Amino acid sequence: MRPAEALDLLGSVRFGRIVFTQHALPAVRVVNHTVVDGEIVIRTHAGAALARSLPGGDTPGVVVAYEADEIDAETHTGWTVVATGYARVLDRATLPAERAARYLDARTPWFPAELSHLVVIRPEIVTGRLLLDPAAP
Amino acid sequence: MRPAEALDLLGSVRFGRIVFTQHALPAVRVVNHTVVDGEIVIRTHAGAALARSLPGGDTPGVVVAYEADEIDAETHTGWTVVATGYARVLDRATLPAERAARYLDARTPWFPAELSHLVVIRPEIVTGRLLLDPAAP
Repeated sequence: MRPAEALDLLGSVRFGRIVFTQHALPAVRVVNHTVVDGEIVIRTHAGAALARSLPGGDTPGVVVAYEADEIDAETHTGWTVVATGYARVLDRATLPAERAARYLDARTPWFPAELSHLVVIRPEIVTGRLLLDPAAP
Repeated sequence: MRPAEALDLLGSVRFGRIVFTQHALPAVRVVNHTVVDGEIVIRTHAGAALARSLPGGDTPGVVVAYEADEIDAETHTGWTVVATGYARVLDRATLPAERAARYLDARTPWFPAELSHLVVIRPEIVTGRLLLDPAAP
């Protein structure tokens, strides 16, 4: 699967899992996302472990992985996409209006919280894998 | 949610995502799992990035995270569980028969591959979170 196809698949679903480092340990959280101009955008709040574990928007960021999938629990078929890239936390209050509008499209975040911040991942490596039914001929 | 409840939820599904470090970068892979006597057991093959990135069975292991969830894409409700603990790779060929039988129960791995190795995670921290419908009253 080409990286562009894999990113399209990732953009076709609403949630995934961000992989980061927290207190020097591997951490993973389910979040909802949108893909905007090739970047993965996640809403979060200032107090979240995620926001506290990532650097601010005026830095190059730190490397994280982001995974999304769609897997049928019955047939065991589907796809999984992993994007690896630099992540930064942006404060909505300090974003230029045009940029905030671009990131914050009409989609409503799922999780009830004060979602004042954005995590933006710029994917450097995107890999997709199809899961096929092992019982198939 | 108590850790025991969270581990029960994790054991109620067949696949999840293991978070590890590969070439000093965060990595995440969808795998299928079983929970056996409180340990998370994953089948893999010797050549897999996962097996090559984890130490062998005669070491304490390295810390990984493991995530599983069940989330309704329509209602946005469900649960997510993250287990953090030490992971080791075991070669089936060198396992005592009793132990191999205990780990390798009747469940069939999904992914067609030569699954000669096991990754065993001993969870130290297990946290579960319910995802509730943010639109609910």
